[in-house]
Amino acid sequence: MDFSLIATDKNSCARAGNIITDHGEIATPIFMPVGTVGSVKAVNQNQLLNEVKAEIILGNTYHLYLRPGLDVLQQAGGLHKFNSWDRPILTDSGGYQVFSLAANRKIKEDGALFQSHIDGSKHLFTPEKVVDIQRVIGADIIMAFDECPPYPSEYAYAKNSMELTHRWLARGVQQMNETEPLYGHSQSLFPIIQGGTYKDLRQISAEFVAQMDCDGNAIGGLSVGEPEEVMYELAALCCTFLPQNKPRYLMGVGTPWNILENISLGIDMFDCVMPTRNGRNGMLFSWNGVINIRNKKWANDFSPIDEVLDCPTSRTYSKAYLRHLFIASEILGLQIASVHNLAFYLDLVKQARKHILQGDFRAWKDAIIPILKQRL
Amino acid sequence: MDFSLIATDKNSCARAGNIITDHGEIATPIFMPVGTVGSVKAVNQNQLLNEVKAEIILGNTYHLYLRPGLDVLQQAGGLHKFNSWDRPILTDSGGYQVFSLAANRKIKEDGALFQSHIDGSKHLFTPEKVVDIQRVIGADIIMAFDECPPYPSEYAYAKNSMELTHRWLARGVQQMNETEPLYGHSQSLFPIIQGGTYKDLRQISAEFVAQMDCDGNAIGGLSVGEPEEVMYELAALCCTFLPQNKPRYLMGVGTPWNILENISLGIDMFDCVMPTRNGRNGMLFSWNGVINIRNKKWANDFSPIDEVLDCPTSRTYSKAYLRHLFIASEILGLQIASVHNLAFYLDLVKQARKHILQGDFRAWKDAIIPILKQRL
Repeated sequence: MDFSLIATDKNSCARAGNIITDHGEIATPIFMPVGTVGSVKAVNQNQLLNEVKAEIILGNTYHLYLRPGLDVLQQAGGLHKFNSWDRPILTDSGGYQVFSLAANRKIKEDGALFQSHIDGSKHLFTPEKVVDIQRVIGADIIMAFDECPPYPSEYAYAKNSMELTHRWLARGVQQMNETEPLYGHSQSLFPIIQGGTYKDLRQISAEFVAQMDCDGNAIGGLSVGEPEEVMYELAALCCTFLPQNKPRYLMGVGTPWNILENISLGIDMFDCVMPTRNGRNGMLFSWNGVINIRNKKWANDFSPIDEVLDCPTSRTYSKAYLRHLFIASEILGLQIASVHNLAFYLDLVKQARKHILQGDFRAWKDAIIPILKQRL
Repeated sequence: MDFSLIATDKNSCARAGNIITDHGEIATPIFMPVGTVGSVKAVNQNQLLNEVKAEIILGNTYHLYLRPGLDVLQQAGGLHKFNSWDRPILTDSGGYQVFSLAANRKIKEDGALFQSHIDGSKHLFTPEKVVDIQRVIGADIIMAFDECPPYPSEYAYAKNSMELTHRWLARGVQQMNETEPLYGHSQSLFPIIQGGTYKDLRQISAEFVAQMDCDGNAIGGLSVGEPEEVMYELAALCCTFLPQNKPRYLMGVGTPWNILENISLGIDMFDCVMPTRNGRNGMLFSWNGVINIRNKKWANDFSPIDEVLDCPTSRTYSKAYLRHLFIASEILGLQIASVHNLAFYLDLVKQARKHILQGDFRAWKDAIIPILKQRL
């Protein structure tokens, strides 16, 4: 994997860059649609490529390990072959899911013991095993195993958890060095900064992560319930200690305005279930603001869902039709809303990049955010 | 609307023809995907056109009248504009739904009083009103209002019901003659043969319907629980009394083999929820037989869902991937299975037409049906 920084905004820390993987190039800043179990919910791979214009999608180690399982993924030749997506994939390590989804988890020095949320079966994830699993999945970018402390966490808990995550990181890096990719394309490991909402811990963690000299770096444990201002402050602080010449990934963020604010702090990569999950609930994002498509006011609005976006789905169907699909509980509504929201998120980061390259990102961002937040 | 008969099979009553509507041509025999409330479940209009290769889709008067309602449909400029499908549409009259879905229905000479299954609101459908509603919906082919007796029905019930349907038909035809299309394209009314499972009633009804000299004719009240042989016998009998130079539509049928058998009896048009409904339950139809995609045997089968079909969805995704989506309850599974099954149904009637034109339909049909019925 290779990263080149192309431009930096003069009036903020926003950056434009390119990540080159064996499955193609990614222009940053980038938003990555979430395909937890190898499918971006309600959206097919052709729509992801041609309508959403996704450049990289996410998979999840915890979910893919449980279903379809490593046997199937290895026989398929990895996730790219399995789900017919031949552009870049990033897999989250499963750390967050073990701590949020699984039952009876026990954290030990060796790793995390847990029971599957599907069938109660018992499993042990260690930093080494999580690397091995992600070798089998075959993602281009794989994440180190971390413990993600809840918000709020006591200082002592956050500190111990962070230190454990650091020891796990060292083991994960060693496992990466001692193993090879299985399918002929290279894989890069990203470490994850933790430390709760404590600035001194975040600094220690960012410095520890930075000196591991991995191909890219991630910030975890944010957007877990803390106030937005705290997220921004900690993201900014982490970026201070991260190298300029490596991509920076803020995990699990967020609203369109969260993304623009964090771009201005120096973040390059984002993922979030919001465009698909909220889309399935009838919330649409657009350059004019937020739409609740179930609202009666759209019943007779025959204008396209969004005529600004270069997305056939957003341009073909009217707000009135999409509202009707939601009111009548038609599955097609979920598909249309998900495709539209993802296309908007991809256009959001594309426009951000354009303004970074033009040199007017900061002014553009400050002007557009109040519009994006409007309830239409 | 214009129908031309192009070929008739020598060894059966199978026919190949063309229906010309103001929204384009339909090659018969044809299968019409069901889009009850203006959306073919889980399938978008681009997929219908380019992957399924649908030539005409169905809407339902009862459902569209209740949601989104006539106000919205009229303001949209009709269903074609509302759902962005600019090829032919046929709307069922709502007769079947009033008798199967609605609550507290009361049948009177004037029409059917019923309560909405959605909100309990009270409505009256008369033969005239059902024509008016379908003028607002704007379908190319609209169906006369009928009473569809359940199976089994007593002779007296079936006879009275049929006679009411005939009186309603005369009123519907008169309403058609006294009203105009609203959107500049022409609309054709198809009458519906009823008569339960009684041959003499079916003959009377077919003769009555035939003498109305409408643009096409339909057979209703079959595939409602009677044995397959009874359905075939009655469909064949009805065809005997229907004119050669008008298309014949057998409503609500059926399995792939039901369709081929009825084509051989002289039916030109079909609709059924089976490809989408069964698809959503993981049942796939193919030229090699029937697949239950949830079965463990497909877990490691990385071959395409169907490489025979000229359908990107069927060719792109593997059986193992689709099984995984169903096991993990991913919405994308519903989309893929529905698109595949509909593409197969459209290919089924396309191949039937090819064999009718080639002159070997009967032999082909007899050879292929046992294969289609196989459980894989």
